[in-house]
Amino acid sequence: MTAVQSIEAHIHDLGLRAKTASRALARLSSDQKNAALMAMADELEADADSILAANATDVADAEEHGLTTAMIDRLKLTPDRIRKIAKDIRDVAGLPDPVGEAIRDWTRPNGLAIRKVRVPIGVIGIIYESRPNVTSDAAVLCIKTGNAVILRGGSESIHSNLAIAAALQSGGEKAGLPADSILLVADTDRAGVIHMAEMDRFIDMIVPRGGHALIEVVVKHARMPVIKHYHGVCHVYVDSAADLDMAMSITINAKCQRPGVCNSLETLLVHRAIATEFLEKCGPALIEKGVELRGDTAACEILGEIATHATEEDWSTEYLDLILSVSIVDNLEQAVDHIETYGSHHSDAIVTEDEETAEAFLSAVDSATVYWNASTRFTDGAEFGFGAEIGISTDKLHARGPMALEELTTYKYTIRGNGQIRG
Amino acid sequence: MTAVQSIEAHIHDLGLRAKTASRALARLSSDQKNAALMAMADELEADADSILAANATDVADAEEHGLTTAMIDRLKLTPDRIRKIAKDIRDVAGLPDPVGEAIRDWTRPNGLAIRKVRVPIGVIGIIYESRPNVTSDAAVLCIKTGNAVILRGGSESIHSNLAIAAALQSGGEKAGLPADSILLVADTDRAGVIHMAEMDRFIDMIVPRGGHALIEVVVKHARMPVIKHYHGVCHVYVDSAADLDMAMSITINAKCQRPGVCNSLETLLVHRAIATEFLEKCGPALIEKGVELRGDTAACEILGEIATHATEEDWSTEYLDLILSVSIVDNLEQAVDHIETYGSHHSDAIVTEDEETAEAFLSAVDSATVYWNASTRFTDGAEFGFGAEIGISTDKLHARGPMALEELTTYKYTIRGNGQIRG
Repeated sequence: MTAVQSIEAHIHDLGLRAKTASRALARLSSDQKNAALMAMADELEADADSILAANATDVADAEEHGLTTAMIDRLKLTPDRIRKIAKDIRDVAGLPDPVGEAIRDWTRPNGLAIRKVRVPIGVIGIIYESRPNVTSDAAVLCIKTGNAVILRGGSESIHSNLAIAAALQSGGEKAGLPADSILLVADTDRAGVIHMAEMDRFIDMIVPRGGHALIEVVVKHARMPVIKHYHGVCHVYVDSAADLDMAMSITINAKCQRPGVCNSLETLLVHRAIATEFLEKCGPALIEKGVELRGDTAACEILGEIATHATEEDWSTEYLDLILSVSIVDNLEQAVDHIETYGSHHSDAIVTEDEETAEAFLSAVDSATVYWNASTRFTDGAEFGFGAEIGISTDKLHARGPMALEELTTYKYTIRGNGQIRG
Repeated sequence: MTAVQSIEAHIHDLGLRAKTASRALARLSSDQKNAALMAMADELEADADSILAANATDVADAEEHGLTTAMIDRLKLTPDRIRKIAKDIRDVAGLPDPVGEAIRDWTRPNGLAIRKVRVPIGVIGIIYESRPNVTSDAAVLCIKTGNAVILRGGSESIHSNLAIAAALQSGGEKAGLPADSILLVADTDRAGVIHMAEMDRFIDMIVPRGGHALIEVVVKHARMPVIKHYHGVCHVYVDSAADLDMAMSITINAKCQRPGVCNSLETLLVHRAIATEFLEKCGPALIEKGVELRGDTAACEILGEIATHATEEDWSTEYLDLILSVSIVDNLEQAVDHIETYGSHHSDAIVTEDEETAEAFLSAVDSATVYWNASTRFTDGAEFGFGAEIGISTDKLHARGPMALEELTTYKYTIRGNGQIRG
């Protein structure tokens, strides 16, 4: 970006260049793409010094701006972290390439052979606010699937992001990656996000990863498909026919194993018939783990002084913390109603030994992932065996739940004939 | 809609009701849905008199407003047309139900059984401007796939649409269809389209079917996924290694068999090496069919007085008429460049006997359907063997090309465990 270029012109220029790159990228073989990925990993390690220098500038700026220690820690790169990023790139190179896969093929009575084949999407826009390693993670998954990528990271890591993106592009080009396959928005003015969202001429899909305000801006302005990664208000429903030891183990795991992530438990629903027996055991166990309990009236009656009263707002809150809201329900229908009313359609679980109840729950709950007798914490690309993950989609279309390589592709129909015309 | 209700309140009310209906609908079995469809067909026939009376009002209004004879013909219903609509409904009842299909299932090393299962989308908004039979076609495909539908037709057919939607809902309810499964926007104020587009809280997907201006309004305002049905600027590329008789047959079929539809041919690309031989035969044959030819300089040199000079605008124009633009290209790369620059990513074909060239074309052209040695006219749900079609998507994500029952579904993951927690 030159000093005289407006943010709008800059974004338009990136879009045009990425679109051109995407056409060449789509035609690379898996071997060519993997060779590029290996070269990207090599270059990232070779450029470690300049990346660390750029990162030091970001860290100094962050300290000057008074960012918290936790935020600075997330921002900070080390030689070890760079080696880890490079290893992750080489791991992605080793994954199977979904592009070219025949999703389905069939021959029509007139002899036309129709093949529904997996192809790259084209140009993907990734908007993120988090750690500089996302620059590499996102770019690498896009290249693996033959997509050009326009990255737009946050201002706090701009120097690191530019250095990482430059190393990846440069390393890739040495192994035949088309120019402009990996582009980074050089200007972190928020107007750039809006220009990206409106540029459906060049960008085929946008993935916003960040806070609610950022996602809202993208959704409001986007003319192309957006795959959102909203919050997770996840539930465990302990049915009257539950194995209560299992229910306690799942509840504690889903709430406590890593409370700061989107697939952790926020609201516990308990069938009235076993509520006293269950909560008298599980409540104190949660307290022992440092969990704050907020119950509805019935739950508070059982939990007594170890719980406070939940407000209406609690039921739709993603705590991302050691806080748990608890509600007593009369039956499956009430549990499902609660989840559909307050949940975020992310990950919800039932604990029961009754198959019929379980199947009714799996069918009725309209969430990306619905569990029977397992912790919600398994909603994750690696846990699903996908090998990579660009996030967890809370959208219903195109990508739902863990979003991996396949979700970075679309399809087209190729049709082979021998002169067929329509009568 | 009551007289005092604003259009915004009306749309909000429909959204809330449809969302409630969608939850009950999603749980119906295939048999229950098919029974509802059969009852809908019966009721449509039983209500024929009142539907025809409502239609007569629309036709009288249209005549008063001076609509063309062709437009009035498209609007007009007859007892025969109603019987045809009812037959189409019964045909859809006979199609396989995609809902519940396991797209994939696998078991993780920890014993979690993961199933990616096809489910309804929820609430689908259909915005259309065309014939009243779309009211039935669209509603029926949504019900078949377990989705609630909010229909918003054009003002010219509002009475017919209301009568048809009422018959379908009433017939369906007699066979157990949830209330509010099929809703029609009673107010044809364009503001309603905007309110629908912004109501992502209740509507999960919008399909606009109509002119460019209508689609633009939806794309600009939509917060949920939109599946567009834009125009088709389709190409046939006659390669130097083409069977020229086949090329002529495909060209004439793609252009002339039904020029007013989106998968008909608009631009013919001819390899320079065979341009004279091919165009000297094919040009006059097209003229004989009543086709107007518009060529680039090289094409006009060969075609002589039977062609006029194409303007830059011609290359991106969907004529929907007996007009064909013709350009001479030096090689496959130029043909692909032309298609990528001016085309609409709908349907494009190569005619060649050379497999390598054909495969390069199939791979490089980024269109929903790409043909080798066949007419572009086959881009159609019925021709693909899909049994039903809600349109032809020119979008890349979720649905691309012919959009049928499967494209009215999404998926979720159901996961069955025996107490797994994450370590």
